[in-house]
This record gives sequence, C-alpha cells and structure tokens, in this order.
Amino acid sequence: MGLVAVTWHNFLRKCHPQKIRSLHTLKVDHQLDQILLSPPLASLDIRDIWTPKSYCQNIPEVHKSFNEQNAVVLDGKLISMEIKSKIADEVRRMKKCLGKVPGLAVVLVGERRESQIYVRNKVTACEEVGISSMVTELSTDCAEAEVHNAVMQYNKDPSIHGILVQLPLPKHLDEEKVLDAVCLAKDVDGFHPLNIGNLAIAGREPLFTPCTPKGCIELLLRAGVEITGKKAVVIGRSNIVGLPTSLLLQRHHATVTVVHAFTENSKQVTCEADIVVSAAGLPNLVRGDWIKPGAVVIDVGTTPVEDPSYEDGYRLVGDVCFEEAVRVASIITPVPGGVGPMTVAMLLLNTLDSAKRILNFT
Amino acid sequence: MGLVAVTWHNFLRKCHPQKIRSLHTLKVDHQLDQILLSPPLASLDIRDIWTPKSYCQNIPEVHKSFNEQNAVVLDGKLISMEIKSKIADEVRRMKKCLGKVPGLAVVLVGERRESQIYVRNKVTACEEVGISSMVTELSTDCAEAEVHNAVMQYNKDPSIHGILVQLPLPKHLDEEKVLDAVCLAKDVDGFHPLNIGNLAIAGREPLFTPCTPKGCIELLLRAGVEITGKKAVVIGRSNIVGLPTSLLLQRHHATVTVVHAFTENSKQVTCEADIVVSAAGLPNLVRGDWIKPGAVVIDVGTTPVEDPSYEDGYRLVGDVCFEEAVRVASIITPVPGGVGPMTVAMLLLNTLDSAKRILNFT
Repeated sequence: MGLVAVTWHNFLRKCHPQKIRSLHTLKVDHQLDQILLSPPLASLDIRDIWTPKSYCQNIPEVHKSFNEQNAVVLDGKLISMEIKSKIADEVRRMKKCLGKVPGLAVVLVGERRESQIYVRNKVTACEEVGISSMVTELSTDCAEAEVHNAVMQYNKDPSIHGILVQLPLPKHLDEEKVLDAVCLAKDVDGFHPLNIGNLAIAGREPLFTPCTPKGCIELLLRAGVEITGKKAVVIGRSNIVGLPTSLLLQRHHATVTVVHAFTENSKQVTCEADIVVSAAGLPNLVRGDWIKPGAVVIDVGTTPVEDPSYEDGYRLVGDVCFEEAVRVASIITPVPGGVGPMTVAMLLLNTLDSAKRILNFT
Repeated sequence: MGLVAVTWHNFLRKCHPQKIRSLHTLKVDHQLDQILLSPPLASLDIRDIWTPKSYCQNIPEVHKSFNEQNAVVLDGKLISMEIKSKIADEVRRMKKCLGKVPGLAVVLVGERRESQIYVRNKVTACEEVGISSMVTELSTDCAEAEVHNAVMQYNKDPSIHGILVQLPLPKHLDEEKVLDAVCLAKDVDGFHPLNIGNLAIAGREPLFTPCTPKGCIELLLRAGVEITGKKAVVIGRSNIVGLPTSLLLQRHHATVTVVHAFTENSKQVTCEADIVVSAAGLPNLVRGDWIKPGAVVIDVGTTPVEDPSYEDGYRLVGDVCFEEAVRVASIITPVPGGVGPMTVAMLLLNTLDSAKRILNFT
C-alpha cells in the first residue's frame, strides 16, 4: 500500500507540484473513536420546519483555507489509510474475542481489465485489514445459473459476511436477477432495491449504504464542509453512484439537483452548486468554468485513458478538468487518489459492520 | 360525483370567473384506448448519452395557449372522471369474463377529520367504478397488533387486491412496521420500500407507482407538457408525495431539484423551474414571484383552513397562491379540483391493475 500511496503522490508532484496540501491542514479535530465522521443515517431525519426562520442563513464559513490560486486537494488515499487502520483494529478485536474475522466474497465475471483491477484492489485491501476474502472468477460466456449458484453458495456460507458482484456484468446476464439473489444481510454494496428504498425513504435506514456515496460524504465531512442547506449538484445518475449519492446528500439536507445527459445547459446548473459530485465517467466533462468560485468538487469519474508514458500503459482520468477546477474550487479531490480509495475503505467497513451484525459483536 | 364537480366549478366561478378554461382547449388528441397517457416505466429507461448533441436543445414550444393574463387551469376533476369512466369499463369487462371485480381494503385508524374525508372519497370512487371496497375502522388508541391483524387478514383475503393504510397513523403506532406488513402484491399506495427502491433504480419497475405522483405526471402529459430535459422543482420531500414525485420526474428525464425546509433561498431555486410541483402542505408558500413566467405549476398542497362561509366550515387551500400564480404560469392546477381527484383515480387504477395481475386477466 505504501507503494501505491507514493505513486499517487508522485502523480500529484509531477502534475501539480504546488498543490500537494494535506487535508490535515484543513481540519484536525476529527480524530474520534468512531471509524467515520458520518453519523448513523436515522439521526439525519430531523423534522422539516417550513418557517423562514428555519432556513440556514448563518452557515459558518467553512472554506477557511480557501486561496484564490489553489483549492485544497483532499488526500483520499491518506484518509482511507486512517480508516483502514481503525478497521484493522476492530478486526483484530473481533478475532481476539470470537476467533473469527469478517469475510468478503467477490464474484467476477469476464475479463474486463478495469473490473480485474478493482477486484484485485479490493482483495489487497482486505488483506491489509485482516478481512478474509474469496473470489469466484467466471468466464465471460458463463451461464446465468453459474453466477446465481456462486452467489447462493456465499449466501449460505457462514464465514462470508459480505458478497459483492463486480459490475458491469456481461450483457447476456440479467444484472437485476443476479443482484436480487444476494441475501440482504450480506449486500455490502447496498445495491439491493430494498436497501436503495430504505436509503430514499426518510425515517428508514438501509442495512448498507453504497460504498462510493458513503466515501464521498465522509470526504466532505472530514474536510469540514457544511452540507445542510447547500446546493449540491450530482452529475450522472447511475444506480451505483449518482442515484445513491443524490439520496445520501439529501439525507444530509442539501438541496440536490441531479444533472444527466438530458439536462439542458448542464454547465449553468452546475455553476450554481456549492458542492459538485461528478460521476458521469466522461473525462474532462466538468471544466473550470462549470465551477462556482469556492465550490467543493468531488470527482468520482475514473476513466482509463491509454498513455504509453505510464507504467501500465494507461492512466486514470476524472470527470473534472483538474488543472482548471483547482484554480476555482475551494476543495477538490484528485483522480486517482480521491474517491477511489475511499470506496474500497467503505466496502471494508460495510463488511466489518455486516460481520458484527451477523455475529452479534459490538 | 356530479355534485362534487359542480361544487368545484362553483368554487372557480366564484373566485376566478375568467379562469375556467378546460384542459381540452389545450390538447384533444389524447383519446387513446389506454387509460393513461403515462407510459410503462421501463420504457423510460433510455441510455444516457453524454455528447452535447444529445442535449435537448430543440424542445418544441408547448405553451401554445400561453396568455400573459391567465394560465390554463387544468381540470383534474374532469380528467379523473374520464379516467374513472375507462376504469369502470375495464371493471365491467372483468366482471363479465371472470365474475369477479377488483377489491380495495382501507385501514383507517383514529378520528382525524381529513383522513375520514379522504377515506370516504375513496370508497365513493370505488362505488362509481364498480370496485368493491371494505373499510376497517380502528380507534385512535388501538393496539399495533389490531392494525397488524387487519392488514394480515386483507393480505390473505382473495377478494382484496389492494390494501391501503390511511396515513398518518396515531403516533403510538410504528408506521414503518404497519406499511411493511402490507403484502407487496397488494401495495396499491406504492409505499413499500421495495416499490420505492424499484422506482428509484433505473431499469427496474415497481409493482405500483404512488398515486399522487402518478396523477401529477398524468396531468402534465395530458396538458402536453414536455418533461424531458426541463428543470423541475419539487417542493417538499415527504415519503408519500415529494420523494416519489422527484423520482418519477427524473424517470421522465427532467432535471429535478428537491426544495425542502433547509433549502437556502427556496424562492430563487423555484424561480428557475419550468415545472413546479409543490407538496409542502403550507398554504400560499409559493407566491407569484416564485414562478418563472410561463412555468407549469402543479399544486399538491391541500390544507383545510377554517372558513365559516363554506358549507363544511372549512375550505381546502393549496401551497400555491393561486391568484398570483395564475397570472405568471402557463398552466396551473387548482385546489381543490386539481391533483386531489387524480390521486383517487390513480388509486382505483392501481387497484384494477393489481386485480388484473393477481387474477391473470389481460
């Protein structure tokens, strides 16, 4: 992991040497006992009171380190390492008390390069924190029954507390059926419609919150960004990022607008946002002039682009034109090294939480 | 029903004599065989293409009847009567073919006046279209087990195809538990988290779409309002109206913003909307200067306000200041006589659809 972190720092050093500023220059008082700053969801359901007085007119200014030249670049890698360190502590405590560790099962179908990399990263992350992991790899042309059987085996397996089907699946497979087969108590990706429904409905609580949205919120909270009452724009409405991120931001009482391919004048809409979360998967969709000065920009987009100058022959590119946005935003996440590592950390945390719930360990 | 329709017309005649313009002056080509103009949900899931060309730059101008003085007032009562007439035809056909009619069960707890009126209206509407109805009335202080038992009885009853628990429940009852007890196949209100989850997730389809949001969309479609790409603002985020309306508008490819009590400058946000759906339950929250000239305004708010000049001692007041908004909007719904009757019609339609599905009748 040290190597990866260095790689990310090298990336930043190469491209934006002046911009390497740790989150810790922003906010240092978050070292609580809890793993996340994110509160339990139910506590966010406070009553809507519609008198003008309830409007948040006196939100404290959070962009204390705001500098017209450069946004603060959030170090997702570093934050995820802190979170993983606390998860590792909890896994050790569980092992000591129960003689058991959380177990994550991954079902990977086909040879899509990015999927293979994501799965490899997840398995490595499990090893780092002491979570056991199992991967079932199936060929691109496998029958739906094979995928279904793999999921059902893991549903029954008492050593497995989280099951993750790596998406996207090859087109001949029915994603809906496969995801529905994952038993609710092990749905650590949080993609089951009952989890999404319970995320959407005020007063209810999903068993699991999808990992990337959860990681985005945690980044915002750790950076001290006030979410309540702020205008948030989520770009993209995928089932795995855009949709649950918009639902989660709304739980945090942001005024959320979802921008998608049919939005007229996406730039104008995005320009008005205090918080922009972009998850369209289109390199450089969000230019500097899409960003309101001082806005907070979370870049979820991670598109591999061929580049022979990189060791692997490609580099990962975000939705946001970083060079431009960093001069306008107050806080920004880089790609890679922003949301990506947070997603993996949240997956580990969901798996830990699932094991605790299943094993009744507190 | 004739009486109620007359009452609504009297209301309009009294308050806004010049504004009685039927929807039919707007669009007359919707007399299709199908009961609704609303398409099946799954068909709305078209692929997001993010090239600028896909942006809807050439939306046809829909406000053909727009007049600077007065918006077209949508006659929800009349439209709902048309829909109910078609539902009645279908119920007769079912009775002729199967010897069975759809059955709706209502569970009403307590003596809340509005709830009693709503339930009475629903029962009357069932009678009008030939749907059988049963009502279980329980006292305000009844035990949760009594409510649960009533629901479970209806779950088992083969003559019942739709079950509706009238909300809100008295505070000592756990609404979540009660709603979850309604079997999914009879959840005609569409409030079960699995239905909400499947409404939210692209590519999935809920068994039932909540009645009020479905009625709002049907009003928009019948008025010829283009939804795709338009800016829509939903005011209020209740589980029964605001949330599902925002999800449904997004399914129709609007760019949706949800305004709630924590929104900073709700007026400014609402001002930018092409379509405003207000469901806050606050009389006259939305003033004329909240509305963009030419916008379409759907007023879901229905708050009873004491008024001794009315026969019942009260009148129903919307969220929108009608007198002001009607001079700015291109299309507007009145309260009463706008969304309210559409909600009841959609409940009947959901019950019919449920009976068709359960009885395998096409």
